[in-house]
Amino acid sequence: MSKVAGRMSVQAAANFLQQPNGGAGLLIGGVPGVPPAKVVIIGGGVVGQHAAEMAIGLGGNVTILDRNNTVLDECEARWGAAVTTVYSTSSALEDLVTDADVVIGAVLVKGDTAPKLVTAEMVKAMRPGSVLVDVAIDQGGAFETSHATTHQDPVYMVDEVVHYAVANMPGAVPRTSTYALNNATLPFTLALADRGAKEAMLGDAHLKNGLNVTGGKVTEPSVADALGYDFTDPDAAIADLAS
Amino acid sequence: MSKVAGRMSVQAAANFLQQPNGGAGLLIGGVPGVPPAKVVIIGGGVVGQHAAEMAIGLGGNVTILDRNNTVLDECEARWGAAVTTVYSTSSALEDLVTDADVVIGAVLVKGDTAPKLVTAEMVKAMRPGSVLVDVAIDQGGAFETSHATTHQDPVYMVDEVVHYAVANMPGAVPRTSTYALNNATLPFTLALADRGAKEAMLGDAHLKNGLNVTGGKVTEPSVADALGYDFTDPDAAIADLAS
Amino acid sequence: MSKVAGRMSVQAAANFLQQPNGGAGLLIGGVPGVPPAKVVIIGGGVVGQHAAEMAIGLGGNVTILDRNNTVLDECEARWGAAVTTVYSTSSALEDLVTDADVVIGAVLVKGDTAPKLVTAEMVKAMRPGSVLVDVAIDQGGAFETSHATTHQDPVYMVDEVVHYAVANMPGAVPRTSTYALNNATLPFTLALADRGAKEAMLGDAHLKNGLNVTGGKVTEPSVADALGYDFTDPDAAIADLAS
Amino acid sequence: MSKVAGRMSVQAAANFLQQPNGGAGLLIGGVPGVPPAKVVIIGGGVVGQHAAEMAIGLGGNVTILDRNNTVLDECEARWGAAVTTVYSTSSALEDLVTDADVVIGAVLVKGDTAPKLVTAEMVKAMRPGSVLVDVAIDQGGAFETSHATTHQDPVYMVDEVVHYAVANMPGAVPRTSTYALNNATLPFTLALADRGAKEAMLGDAHLKNGLNVTGGKVTEPSVADALGYDFTDPDAAIADLAS
Amino acid sequence: MSKVAGRMSVQAAANFLQQPNGGAGLLIGGVPGVPPAKVVIIGGGVVGQHAAEMAIGLGGNVTILDRNNTVLDECEARWGAAVTTVYSTSSALEDLVTDADVVIGAVLVKGDTAPKLVTAEMVKAMRPGSVLVDVAIDQGGAFETSHATTHQDPVYMVDEVVHYAVANMPGAVPRTSTYALNNATLPFTLALADRGAKEAMLGDAHLKNGLNVTGGKVTEPSVADALGYDFTDPDAAIADLAS
Amino acid sequence: MSKVAGRMSVQAAANFLQQPNGGAGLLIGGVPGVPPAKVVIIGGGVVGQHAAEMAIGLGGNVTILDRNNTVLDECEARWGAAVTTVYSTSSALEDLVTDADVVIGAVLVKGDTAPKLVTAEMVKAMRPGSVLVDVAIDQGGAFETSHATTHQDPVYMVDEVVHYAVANMPGAVPRTSTYALNNATLPFTLALADRGAKEAMLGDAHLKNGLNVTGGKVTEPSVADALGYDFTDPDAAIADLAS
Repeated sequence: MSKVAGRMSVQAAANFLQQPNGGAGLLIGGVPGVPPAKVVIIGGGVVGQHAAEMAIGLGGNVTILDRNNTVLDECEARWGAAVTTVYSTSSALEDLVTDADVVIGAVLVKGDTAPKLVTAEMVKAMRPGSVLVDVAIDQGGAFETSHATTHQDPVYMVDEVVHYAVANMPGAVPRTSTYALNNATLPFTLALADRGAKEAMLGDAHLKNGLNVTGGKVTEPSVADALGYDFTDPDAAIADLAS
Repeated sequence: MSKVAGRMSVQAAANFLQQPNGGAGLLIGGVPGVPPAKVVIIGGGVVGQHAAEMAIGLGGNVTILDRNNTVLDECEARWGAAVTTVYSTSSALEDLVTDADVVIGAVLVKGDTAPKLVTAEMVKAMRPGSVLVDVAIDQGGAFETSHATTHQDPVYMVDEVVHYAVANMPGAVPRTSTYALNNATLPFTLALADRGAKEAMLGDAHLKNGLNVTGGKVTEPSVADALGYDFTDPDAAIADLAS
Repeated sequence: MSKVAGRMSVQAAANFLQQPNGGAGLLIGGVPGVPPAKVVIIGGGVVGQHAAEMAIGLGGNVTILDRNNTVLDECEARWGAAVTTVYSTSSALEDLVTDADVVIGAVLVKGDTAPKLVTAEMVKAMRPGSVLVDVAIDQGGAFETSHATTHQDPVYMVDEVVHYAVANMPGAVPRTSTYALNNATLPFTLALADRGAKEAMLGDAHLKNGLNVTGGKVTEPSVADALGYDFTDPDAAIADLAS
Repeated sequence: MSKVAGRMSVQAAANFLQQPNGGAGLLIGGVPGVPPAKVVIIGGGVVGQHAAEMAIGLGGNVTILDRNNTVLDECEARWGAAVTTVYSTSSALEDLVTDADVVIGAVLVKGDTAPKLVTAEMVKAMRPGSVLVDVAIDQGGAFETSHATTHQDPVYMVDEVVHYAVANMPGAVPRTSTYALNNATLPFTLALADRGAKEAMLGDAHLKNGLNVTGGKVTEPSVADALGYDFTDPDAAIADLAS
Repeated sequence: MSKVAGRMSVQAAANFLQQPNGGAGLLIGGVPGVPPAKVVIIGGGVVGQHAAEMAIGLGGNVTILDRNNTVLDECEARWGAAVTTVYSTSSALEDLVTDADVVIGAVLVKGDTAPKLVTAEMVKAMRPGSVLVDVAIDQGGAFETSHATTHQDPVYMVDEVVHYAVANMPGAVPRTSTYALNNATLPFTLALADRGAKEAMLGDAHLKNGLNVTGGKVTEPSVADALGYDFTDPDAAIADLAS
Repeated sequence: MSKVAGRMSVQAAANFLQQPNGGAGLLIGGVPGVPPAKVVIIGGGVVGQHAAEMAIGLGGNVTILDRNNTVLDECEARWGAAVTTVYSTSSALEDLVTDADVVIGAVLVKGDTAPKLVTAEMVKAMRPGSVLVDVAIDQGGAFETSHATTHQDPVYMVDEVVHYAVANMPGAVPRTSTYALNNATLPFTLALADRGAKEAMLGDAHLKNGLNVTGGKVTEPSVADALGYDFTDPDAAIADLAS
């Protein structure tokens, strides 16, 4: 789903940059002779790379921020001079965000709420009509000014900056998303059906890592922590399951 | 403006392919493992090439139809295996349109109404939720089912197919369009200011070709024809002007 | 050798698509205005990716099927809009194969016979003059209708579909293959020469993984299974070797 | 047809470079770690550029020779570091041809026999198993050692060098060639049908330029010269036609 | 020679951006995580496009300014999101130059001195250690602060900005330049040798356009104007030549 | 720093290939019609890949040598026909080096002196004015004829071949290098500051691997070996540290 959301984030930004939709009235790629919009993508993981692919495809001036040098290397090897990669420090982030036409929040911290990297003050310093897309809204959002919206009413304004923060972005393209979800989950479904839960999890670390609750025990530390339950080691919990 | 409209046509299509906006619920580029939308662009001129650049950039499965082999050569040299080029015959057009998720009407016939290449019958044969974008609507439209819309109410449905036919597409991105228009017209404005209309037109065939009416005479044949006036040769009309 | 075979598979397909060679009389890349051939590659591993690189290079309309999402991500990151990636389900495979001009069978299951993904019925449903290339023929073949052929007599017809299934494809380009094989095996040869078999295998898991038989014991489970011998753990067998 | 022949020339070369087919046993693109074949294309026009697109697509080491600097600029702008462009002098040509694995003769002189740029002596100096493809064979051939062959028996050896010189290359891919020919000729056919020969030629310089004989007069100077007839100016001959 | 100079301009800039050579201590392409240098190229003709190819190749953040929309279209079609194209107005130029790390002056006005587009005031506003390369120095230079230098002493500082303005840049790479010059002039040389000056010029408009002086008469208007001589129409002067 | 040095190596080579700087007078990329310089990069790791990106960007004819097939696969997947990859044997290396215009020594052996892959004899066989850049000079150099130089006096000649072997290449571009170094080291610095040396090293294998000396003990085997000290296992040494 991250891939779908990352790709959609850019077409949402393109749409809400149009003036009748509340934006500054800019085309992401400009046209020859008229510079493109500045698109800043915070986070170069799956969401960020799929967003970058689309934003570069539309001809945007794209900058990716990340704190993982390997991720930045990958991005530069993939897009060369068509992307600018920046190691994410708070000052680099502030400079880039406040000069951006579009900011895509694409940071995820596994099992935890997303860090509020963009403050209300930065939003206030942005140009009117700029567009924020918060792909991390499911986990609390990457912008201090974000709150979840719906496809029926996807945007709101804060300090004349458009906020798009639909909680279930892939829901708008079900004919793509449903297949993507099936493709991602089918191997696990088959393993569960063929071998039962215990054997399937013992045979596949990825499936085991997805276990949050079993037999009344919480087996994912950040979930346990967030909800105030005791944490049980998943290996122990699985060992207790009937085969 | 053709460049702006061509580029915008694809982001309009992407937006209205979303299910909450009336479309089939597809992402133009799909995601890895899920095939992209089929985007058919009728006409490989300025509008069509700018549309193609965006649609390929979003990862779409793009086919360009044209009757000019040089245009098809250019498109294939530019995008290689990422585009399919097809010589436009009525049967090729019908096959491609009725199997498309998105159709961009990008045909222009200078000074004339656009040909109605896509019939109502073809539209009826398309899948529900497919999207038509009629960039030629200013000249009457390329689809038999088209009528002009506005940015306030940009789409309507015919046979469950979304029609986007905003008459002044570039008006939605004025910060891009105004500059693009200035860049295109500035040389002519400077020539008119520096040298007067007569000398300016004598010195620049492009400017002279833009002359439609002067001294009460219609100097553009298709305008004269459409409005029922006599046609006056522009060279003669210009010769009559005071320097 | 997989790289050589993957690359050769596409030039074999191009050659046998020619009408005097039994094929449908198509150029893989078409020409501008005439659509390219539809090339379906089953399997996106080493063979499949090298085949894809060649088929895209010749301008084909290329689709890669695989059940591994990471492989599909890699392929799409590498070739973007020039490739379509599809998660391989039996219905997707059937739809694509029966509409293909070229099918490359590039599936390998380590140490086992290749699965017969393309049935005789699917072959019957293909257009006459289409071309199948079975790179998996060494392991029994990916098509139900495959049987091994030679460079002297490389193809045969089943239901008017050309089958190319040369068992030792790289043998036709020895000046490339010999070097490729040397490059792949030289580090192992040097290790064996410098350190002896036991130490060399203890120091290099890849070399150890290549051990099938030693001291009269079969140390590779699928070989043991296929031939009806007892399986001996390779670590135990190696420990018994003299240094 | 030049586009079809240019593209086919490379797949013919790839096929005949295989050892069982008489060639040196090389894969055009090599594989990682094993260098590619050296492909020299004489002439960077339509044939040469389509050949280059395919040869680069297969990963070959491609050099294009031409005497037209604009053509060389175009080639380098299109393929960058993936191609080497060389101004064609007799010494550059000799150096490149005698060190090539594949030579594509893609020179055309309008209405005249092709110049014999590659001499028998150069052929003798080439490595055994190298492959020559003479796309200019219809006009006498670009190699001194060429004579026309057929799809039934496409190659012969001279000094251990494979010569492929099929006179009607596009005939092997009729499902591509027929459409290509239709696309190229349809506008002329329609003009002739709609307006008659005289008006059609007066209205289209390209059509007029194609006129070789009319009313018993030869209207193409090189044809007249080659066959020993008087030359008649085409404008005069057309003026004599009935409307 | 413009091609050589355009390409060299970027490697000169890269070299003098190094701190020991007087520059700001920047790598043109940065590295992943560290943004690239901003390279502004004034003029998108032959010099500018060859400079852009190199600067994009080194990973720079490249902007091309021109007043010709067709040139800007070409540049954007060629490099896509890897380049920013800007219609050159005096305010756009000032904004870009004063924020640049490298400025390449690549403007040529045929037969005339280059316009001084970059003023001394703009230079003063640049960051210390930025580098100007004046490829137009042969025609007086594009920067108000330029004066010609030599390969022995190629740079000087004005307001802490490095100026590289070697009058004969291609002279540093004679093994490339000599061949380039031969390739460009050989057709004219052969025509002069084969047919004599009069016939050669009558048969080739490009050669005729190169005629500046013949029979004591100045046949190029801007030369005549610059030197205070009468201008003679070249056709008339050529007609007077003996065959 | 390897990235900075790899990228700089090519701009150093470009600069010293100029005749006034001692080189052969060649432009790395040539120009259309004049072949590019032959750039041979020994080692396809981080240094080599960054060097290759720049050399291909400048239009050079680039060959990468390595003994790691995975590295060669990566390089070919990334640059396709724009690069030649060669498995490094002593004969391949000698052939390529002695025919090169530029050789980049980009081999590193962790913690050890670089192997002297290029002998004095090979250097003697190179063309006058060729350029060697020894990025491995910090570890003793990859060329038998190398000795460390400085940015003040960066090159010297051996057998008419230019040697560039500045020991601290990144020092010339401090505004790029300092940021690159910060980005690479910041995570470690933060870990050390937040958690103390012991916990930080226990929590991060990369940090632990960087430990050379602690508590008077040498914990890196090649350092111990080179300096004649006893080697202490880093885990043991860390366990002895106070938390």
